[in-house]
Parts: sequence; structure tokens; C-alpha cells
Amino acid sequence: MKLIIGGNGKMGSLIKETAQNLGHTVLANVDTSNLDILDQIETADMIIDFSHRDNLSWILDYVQAHDCALVYGTTGLEDDQKEQLVTLSKSHPVFFSANYSYGVAVFSEILKVAVPLLKDTFDMELVETHHNQKADAPSGTAKAILEIMNPDGAFKEVYGRHGLIGPRQKEIGVHALRGGTEAGEHTVHFFGDNESITITHHATNRQIFVNGALKAAAWLENKPAGLYGMNDLLGVDHA
Amino acid sequence: MKLIIGGNGKMGSLIKETAQNLGHTVLANVDTSNLDILDQIETADMIIDFSHRDNLSWILDYVQAHDCALVYGTTGLEDDQKEQLVTLSKSHPVFFSANYSYGVAVFSEILKVAVPLLKDTFDMELVETHHNQKADAPSGTAKAILEIMNPDGAFKEVYGRHGLIGPRQKEIGVHALRGGTEAGEHTVHFFGDNESITITHHATNRQIFVNGALKAAAWLENKPAGLYGMNDLLGVDHA
Amino acid sequence: MKLIIGGNGKMGSLIKETAQNLGHTVLANVDTSNLDILDQIETADMIIDFSHRDNLSWILDYVQAHDCALVYGTTGLEDDQKEQLVTLSKSHPVFFSANYSYGVAVFSEILKVAVPLLKDTFDMELVETHHNQKADAPSGTAKAILEIMNPDGAFKEVYGRHGLIGPRQKEIGVHALRGGTEAGEHTVHFFGDNESITITHHATNRQIFVNGALKAAAWLENKPAGLYGMNDLLGVDHA
Amino acid sequence: MKLIIGGNGKMGSLIKETAQNLGHTVLANVDTSNLDILDQIETADMIIDFSHRDNLSWILDYVQAHDCALVYGTTGLEDDQKEQLVTLSKSHPVFFSANYSYGVAVFSEILKVAVPLLKDTFDMELVETHHNQKADAPSGTAKAILEIMNPDGAFKEVYGRHGLIGPRQKEIGVHALRGGTEAGEHTVHFFGDNESITITHHATNRQIFVNGALKAAAWLENKPAGLYGMNDLLGVDHA
Repeated sequence: MKLIIGGNGKMGSLIKETAQNLGHTVLANVDTSNLDILDQIETADMIIDFSHRDNLSWILDYVQAHDCALVYGTTGLEDDQKEQLVTLSKSHPVFFSANYSYGVAVFSEILKVAVPLLKDTFDMELVETHHNQKADAPSGTAKAILEIMNPDGAFKEVYGRHGLIGPRQKEIGVHALRGGTEAGEHTVHFFGDNESITITHHATNRQIFVNGALKAAAWLENKPAGLYGMNDLLGVDHA
Repeated sequence: MKLIIGGNGKMGSLIKETAQNLGHTVLANVDTSNLDILDQIETADMIIDFSHRDNLSWILDYVQAHDCALVYGTTGLEDDQKEQLVTLSKSHPVFFSANYSYGVAVFSEILKVAVPLLKDTFDMELVETHHNQKADAPSGTAKAILEIMNPDGAFKEVYGRHGLIGPRQKEIGVHALRGGTEAGEHTVHFFGDNESITITHHATNRQIFVNGALKAAAWLENKPAGLYGMNDLLGVDHA
Repeated sequence: MKLIIGGNGKMGSLIKETAQNLGHTVLANVDTSNLDILDQIETADMIIDFSHRDNLSWILDYVQAHDCALVYGTTGLEDDQKEQLVTLSKSHPVFFSANYSYGVAVFSEILKVAVPLLKDTFDMELVETHHNQKADAPSGTAKAILEIMNPDGAFKEVYGRHGLIGPRQKEIGVHALRGGTEAGEHTVHFFGDNESITITHHATNRQIFVNGALKAAAWLENKPAGLYGMNDLLGVDHA
Repeated sequence: MKLIIGGNGKMGSLIKETAQNLGHTVLANVDTSNLDILDQIETADMIIDFSHRDNLSWILDYVQAHDCALVYGTTGLEDDQKEQLVTLSKSHPVFFSANYSYGVAVFSEILKVAVPLLKDTFDMELVETHHNQKADAPSGTAKAILEIMNPDGAFKEVYGRHGLIGPRQKEIGVHALRGGTEAGEHTVHFFGDNESITITHHATNRQIFVNGALKAAAWLENKPAGLYGMNDLLGVDHA
């Protein structure tokens, strides 16, 4: 496919390099600083963007003008921007996910099976580990996992236990470890009566997100208009 | 309920004690050495047996004569004994499983979701750990897990790697750790491209099997004739 | 040996049973409610106490009056009570530790080697897991571990990370997981530049503390007056 | 420092890049195909080599001719080559190790403390995990760990347990997991009576070996003639 990549940073470079290794043609890496290049290149089949919400505007325009598809992985969107993506998907194929790792997608599917079977009789705790430069806690992926563990907010989310805390209540402990150069590990513990189940996803580096995005791109090729996600890629039906 | 417990050993005692704590009446622990007690006690609602296949004969007789239910967990049956259980289940409620741990049952359900999504692009390895007196390897539970991981034998099961083995083939490494007093841990690793998923079940002691058997007993009460298993207890439908 | 066991609770019973299995004579389990029994029994060679500081008074009296030895494991002492133990040790053999698990003692020795080699270039985090009824956090053992990790308070101890925390500072994250019936697990993580070291101690049940106390008792037999600890039992010299 | 790097492959490039980032001057990457460059460059302060034993000859010549130092990490040497290194170290500073990861060096120091304290009462098992292209098992690092765990061969090393193996003997189970792109993980388990200790080293990528080599280089600068190893770098004295 002929691709435009959103963004000129580290992630944009990594997507470009990986796409080329897979045999795709990368027409350009584009952000708001070099928009004029869009007039000088061939028409793209697809845009892949993991950059910044400020790029959403030209991306929407381009997709509508050139009848191409979109793989979108930028997080931190405003509500009206999310609506714009949904609107776009009515006329064009749009793939959207907050995490393109295939492993994290499977991890989520596993939790959708495990949590309903365990939440009443096992205690749930979530531990995530990231490098020492990460500025927020818990991670975005941990937040998405918490939505699966606690969809209706029935459990109180507890951040840090210290002092005379008393017996555990109906709660989920959320623990953010920070250290070294860890690319990202997420573990859900289920502690029961004389037994426990532990499920861990470990990422070595950000390449997994790029690989996932390019799998999504290959899957999206020639699909009809619609809003697609990792569930569709996995072929899992939650209807 | 009024219960008869098969066997007079450690497991039989543990079932008796736990059943009484839950408010059940234990009429007797019975094996082939004290069968005459069956004529001296009230009629049981259910038999729970985790003892030895030699007790199957009187259990079948009793269930048919007294119209009661059966929770059966003894392993190592002959084929014709398995058929006798199936025949019994046509006229009486029979619950049968090789592992009554609720956690292992959920672990199995998790693997039924994970394996099909991962087996083509991730490498699978199985590690089990048990105490230093365990005489066989891999464990019975590990064998059951392998049937989920490798239902059609497409992967070669490899026990021990040593020397110049060459690159990994289409295989599953099966590793039996032995040490101390470990009650039983089973881990399935999925190793992918720059990411991995790890799923572990850990048992602290054999109480979990007793708890599972008594959950099965409570579930089985007042059920119609039929052959039931842990899937039914979980309410999971694989149809 | 002829032993008096302090306390009549679960721990006292477990010590009694284990001591008898090892061939010791248990003269009595004693607490403030049955002190008169001390006049009716033979003279003890040793007292083992893991009960409550309220029993310290009669224990000190007995040891001095009968020239016997003391294995003491009760925590939560007042400062003047600690001094009383030190004073006693000038005339009698006294073994004192806040944790009699042999494994935790070795775990501590390991950390005394690892921490100085790693603390300047690796980030340290401490995770402990206990059952859902434990009322305090972090555990007493975790506090003892923190004294090894951070003897001079150079690292800030952080309990819970949530929100925009910014890059990691000179700190140790301390995480208390609570769930199920976990008897006690302590893990120290060292996260470095593209590598990590993880050290875990896992306890299955409180039997390990009893085993450790009886090892200490056997070691203490016929020792001269003095105050001894787990270092002496291990034969490790930090001089 | 002014450095010559042995080898023109991936490892040589990585050392060059990292050395430059640390402010060193890399005069050249050299192997037997471009030896003539040695006459065209400035005199080096040090050679760092992780390439192939075929380069040892010119390295020995250069060090002796130019009075520089050597950090050597190539494995698979012939016995006479090892002797040549020892001879060189009598007149020049030579640092030699089979594994330059700082973390693996600390891991080894930890085991030297833990093994003597645990080997009599805990069962030891070794698990290593590497990517699916690794052709040998166990890994070279695992072999070095086994020398610490079993210096006198008192334990039988067992590779794979399958079938009716009977109770565990005086043995060490060695387990090689293979999968995905794992850069290298080594775990030593100590299983005791109701407790266990687990020690793990995890490497994310080969950068850790480069970092270790450059730490060794910085440490070696201005040292007198002698043969040095990771123990010296750690400042650990086993005398």
C-alpha cells in the first residue's frame, strides 16, 4: 500500500521503517510543519497516525478528499474530535484503538473471560511497571484494563496502602512500579481461597505497537466504511 | 445435605471436616473395609468420593439403590469404569472432574480463549512445579492443560532441551520443576515478537480441591439426571 | 529439651505440636490466665514465646529463677521491655528475632550483598503480598527489609503513585498487595538500564516461623549467656 | 579515551555508538579484513573486543607495541589463546570476562551468598529463557551459574523430567525455555519446607553487555598491569 504516516518523531520514524520493511511505500511523514508536501505526493491508500491530536484536522480533510482509509492510534482526544472520527467512519474505513499491541488485545480478551468468573470469590489487584521517566500513573493501558475489571465501578480503586488500613474491602489495589528502562508490564492478580491466578503481559519495546498498527492496516485494506477496533482484528464477537 | 464420603484417608477426613463446617451432615466415611456401616446409617442425599477406583463398585450400587447423587473425583479409572459412570448418569445426577479446583477450571477457560488467538504467532511453553516427593511428570493437571494447548497434536511436546538443539521448531516445551513442599503451580508462557503473555495458577494446598468438590455438591443438589462437569458449574457454554 | 511455650493460641499450639514431633517435651503452654501451672510442672530448659508482650513479665521472672534459656519472637514491645531482654541476656542465653523464617533470614543476607552493589545505578521497588484480613501495611518483614534497602534514609519511601507524578526521584516505591489467603510474599525489584534483578521470598504458611524458632532453640541449647539473632544461626559474620 | 573496537559487525557497531555517546573517541572498528587501518590512525589508549578469536593475534601485537590496555569479551578461545591473554596481563592491564552485564555479575555474587546457606535444606532448580533462534541449551550464562550452584558436582544435573521419575534425588533441574525474541532471563529457584526463594536476572537486549564493557573500560583506565575481572569491578573480595 501507499502510506502517509502522521508525525515526524520517533514513533513516526519507526512506523515508516517497519512499513518499508514489509514492502509498503511510504509517501511521506507529515505533521503541521510540512503540510505542503501533501500536494506534491501521490495519492495514499491509507494514513497511519500515532502522533498528536493537533494533526487530526488535516487527516480528516485528506481522508475525505482522497477516499482513503485511516488507522488511528493517537490518544488524548477531545470529545468533539472523537465524534469527528465516528462521523468519518460512516463514509470511510477507520480503525481506532488506544493500544495496538496484539498481545494487549489478547490480554484484554482473556480478562473479559476471567473477571466475570472470578470477581465474586477472588480478590483482584493490578500491578503495572514502566520506566523511570514515565510521568503519569497508572498507565493508559492500566486504565483500559481497569474498565474491564471494574466496568460499573462496583469496586473502589485503591492507590497505595499505608498504615492501619484494616481488612480489605470491596476494592482493587492499583500499583504503579517505576524503574529503569522497562517498556511496560501489566499484571492482574486474582487471589482466592488457597489458590491464585496471575496474568501478565510484558512488552519489550514500542515496536509491538508499530507491528500492531501495520497488522491493522493490512486487515483494513479494502474493507467497507465503518469503525473498526482490535476486537474486529482478533475476530472476537462479543455480541 | 446428608453425605457419605468415600475413603478414610487424609482427603476423606478433609472433605468430612469441611462439609461439617459448611453445615452438612456427614453420615460416614466409607471404604471397602467398613462397608457394613452403610446398613446402619440414614439414607444419604449425595456421595462424594476422591479415594480409589476400588470403591467405585459399592458407590454405583448405593447410588442406584437409594436414588442419590454423586460427586466423583477419583482418577486412574479403567475404561469400563468410566462407562459405568456414564451409564449411571442416565438415571442419576453425576458430577465428574479430574480437578475440582475452581481456579484450575477458570485457568482452563482462559486458555481456551488465549490459545487459538496466540498459537500461530506466539511460542508456547508449559512449566509446572510440585513438591519433591511427586513421583510422576508432568502432573495430571499439566496433561489436561496440554490437551487444551495442543488438541490435535500439531505441536511436538518436548521434555528437556540439552546440547546443540538448533532453532525452535513447531513444539511446546514442557518443564517439570520439583522442590520443597510446593502444592502445585502451573504456568503457560506465550512468547511473541517483543512481547509475552504469562498465565499462572498457584495452589497453596489440597483444600482447594475439597472446596471445589463441595461447591459442585451444592450445585448438583436437586439437579435432574445427567453427567455434569466444571464447565456446567462455571456456567460456560462451549456449544 | 523440656520446653515451656508462651501463649495458648494458634501459634502456641503449632509450636507445641511441632516441638513434640521433634522429640521435645512440652511441659505446658502458659499465659497470664494459667500462671499457677508453673508451680506444678518440672523445670524447663527453655521458654519459647511468640504470643503477646503481656507475657514478658512472668517469662523474665521464670528464666531468672530457673536458670533457663529463652527464644523470643513476640513483636510490638515497648522500649523498656526491649531493655529488659537485653539485661536478661547478660546472665542468660537469649535468642531474639522479629522473623524466625530461615528463608527470610537468607533473603536478608542476600539483600545486604545486593543493595550496596545496585542502589546507585538500579531503581529499587518493594512489593509485599498478604491475605485480605491483614490490617497493617507494609508488613513487619517489609519494614525490616526497608531498613536494609535504605539504612540511612537516603531514599524517600513512596506509598502509592497516582496522577501526574513526574519522573522518578531518589525513592523506593513500597507496594502492599492484599488478597485471598496469601501467607506472605516479599519481592525486591532492581530495575536497571536494559536489565533487572528480582528477588522473592514466598511463605506458604506460618509453619516456617515455628520451624525457625525450633531451629533457634536447638542452636541455643548449652550456649553461654548472650543476646543472639538469626545472623548467629546462619553463621554469617558482618564484623 | 581513544579506542579501537574489534570487529565490524552488529556488536562492534553498538560498542562504537555507545562509546561515542559517552564522549570517547573511536579511532576505528578493526578486524582481519581492514588491518592496514592500524597504521593510519592515532595511538589508542585501549582496545575493546567482543568479536571473534581470529582477531586475538593482531590485538596482542597492537597492545604490546603501543603500550595500551585491553577489555576482552570474546568467548570460545582455545586454551593457548587464554594463556596468551594471561601472559599479556603480566605487562599490560587486561580485563577479561565471559559476561560483561553488570547485573549478571551481581546476580553471581548473590548466588555465592545464597547457595551455601540454602543448598543443604532447599531444593535448587535453574530456569533460563531465550529467543527461539538460540541453537544451544543451556546458555553459556546458565553454565556459569551452574558452576556456582554446583562447584564440586555433588548434585546431578537433570535435563527434562518425564514419566515415572520417582521422588527427587540430590539433583538440580535445568530447564531451557525457548520462545519469541526473549533476550535472556535466568532464574534460580530455592524450594524449602513451606517457603521458597526465587532470584531472577532479566536482560532486555544486548546493550547491557556493551554498557558493562564500557564500565570496565572506564575502570581499567590508568590501572597497572594485571588480569582483572567483574569481581574487581564490583569491588568484591572473595579472598
